[in-house]
Amino acid sequence: MTRQQLFENIKNKKSYLCIGLDTDITKIPHHLLKSEDPVFEFNKQIIDATHDLCVAYKPNMAFYETMGAKGWTSLEKTVNYINKTYKDIFTIADAKRGDIGNTSKMYAKAFLETLNFDSITVAPYMGEDSVTPFFEYKNKWVILLVLTSNKGAEDFQTLKLMELQTPNPLYKQVLETSQNWGNADNMMYVVGATKAEMLSEIREVVPDSFLLVPGVGAQGGSLEEVAKYGMNKQCGLLVNSSRGIIYAGTGENFTEKAREETIKLQEEMDSLLENYL
Amino acid sequence: MTRQQLFENIKNKKSYLCIGLDTDITKIPHHLLKSEDPVFEFNKQIIDATHDLCVAYKPNMAFYETMGAKGWTSLEKTVNYINKTYKDIFTIADAKRGDIGNTSKMYAKAFLETLNFDSITVAPYMGEDSVTPFFEYKNKWVILLVLTSNKGAEDFQTLKLMELQTPNPLYKQVLETSQNWGNADNMMYVVGATKAEMLSEIREVVPDSFLLVPGVGAQGGSLEEVAKYGMNKQCGLLVNSSRGIIYAGTGENFTEKAREETIKLQEEMDSLLENYL
Repeated sequence: MTRQQLFENIKNKKSYLCIGLDTDITKIPHHLLKSEDPVFEFNKQIIDATHDLCVAYKPNMAFYETMGAKGWTSLEKTVNYINKTYKDIFTIADAKRGDIGNTSKMYAKAFLETLNFDSITVAPYMGEDSVTPFFEYKNKWVILLVLTSNKGAEDFQTLKLMELQTPNPLYKQVLETSQNWGNADNMMYVVGATKAEMLSEIREVVPDSFLLVPGVGAQGGSLEEVAKYGMNKQCGLLVNSSRGIIYAGTGENFTEKAREETIKLQEEMDSLLENYL
Repeated sequence: MTRQQLFENIKNKKSYLCIGLDTDITKIPHHLLKSEDPVFEFNKQIIDATHDLCVAYKPNMAFYETMGAKGWTSLEKTVNYINKTYKDIFTIADAKRGDIGNTSKMYAKAFLETLNFDSITVAPYMGEDSVTPFFEYKNKWVILLVLTSNKGAEDFQTLKLMELQTPNPLYKQVLETSQNWGNADNMMYVVGATKAEMLSEIREVVPDSFLLVPGVGAQGGSLEEVAKYGMNKQCGLLVNSSRGIIYAGTGENFTEKAREETIKLQEEMDSLLENYL
């Protein structure tokens, strides 16, 4: 999917919501457990109930890997189902991969070719040759970790570096250095919603890039603040919510509950788009 | 496996070799392709031919994920085979995972419980709460990325930080900060062999910890230098070789070729253990 297509979808749906499919078999409604593939069945029903209100889905690999090969099959079926059924959805493999070039090339193949995701989250610690192999797929995206929403972000990401003209914190250096690797048409950045005030600083470096923003909801970030500091002329935001939507209900009506929560976010996003776009 | 057990295995086998199972179906001998699970069959034969000369195997997740659920099954069979057949082998999931606490907990379960590896490589960028969930499994290990063997290591890992009494490069800060998370009995560090001269500096911070050293062979690191600067009283080293061993032969005699290459490394390690231990 191109940047322009993604923006068109955002305008059509009046939403820049990404739904995180952090599907945990111990948390899904009991009645689904008798189906052949409960995790896929849960995802399918959540997707069918919410696809018109969001622009992206983001399965988190950890939740599938916990179930071994079976989990990997549920993942494959989920992304295939989205790709086949809803052409206006951007898919994100939340995998946070990154390794030496030879290995990153295999990860790129795994997620952007075999599984056919539109994008993959990538960790920057190993530098350029760990990231660039992911750019080899046309109209696919790297979503690079910059500033994450967790407490541990302060351990290294916000430490200041010396030997530079301006003493950047590490996360800003990652942002700047990565400008030599890709551009706003093949690279997005993960910026936690819990760090909304830092978004304007980030926007100075990457005015056009899309930002994937986790941390709204369960982790405490504010949608209003993210829009205020982070929105650009093409929206430039994908805001993720996982647990707050997919586990909104625990009974047979879980899809209705999920849809209700999704509508709340979509309506807030609609008015924020009107205010800031 | 405990640190003491690992050291005993090193002494018994006169080897601190780790063999990287970066198994690529397009590179394995042709005659194996007709077996039911060629990747597992290749791994099994490599393991049978080399297990007495090495102390660890390190499957690289990327190579298995490229094949989807089928690859995950080959991986499961490989680690199960090692665990069942060769009790003196330390298994490493080369996964380079790391995410918010809630997610790292799922990765820990996936690799240290479901797959039952002894250890997993973890990326440090997201800080403490992305790493500590992996410590919840007894006698299992985190192997934290510190200084990697690739060119991109210079993009961020070696940049100097300010605001500290001594201006540490990032990799050294990772090393120091992580001392608050784990210890030499549950945490090892990845230090590339291509950076051997930096090993003595690293040893000052972590005199007792095991170091997992990739980059010998294909990537150009020297075994002699690694031993000189990195060995401690319990050896403290696991040196990895992947392609140089597993693809030493391409025909029906590939296990013999692999064993020959393994013997060369084991013999060099034997004499280095005599010199430096």
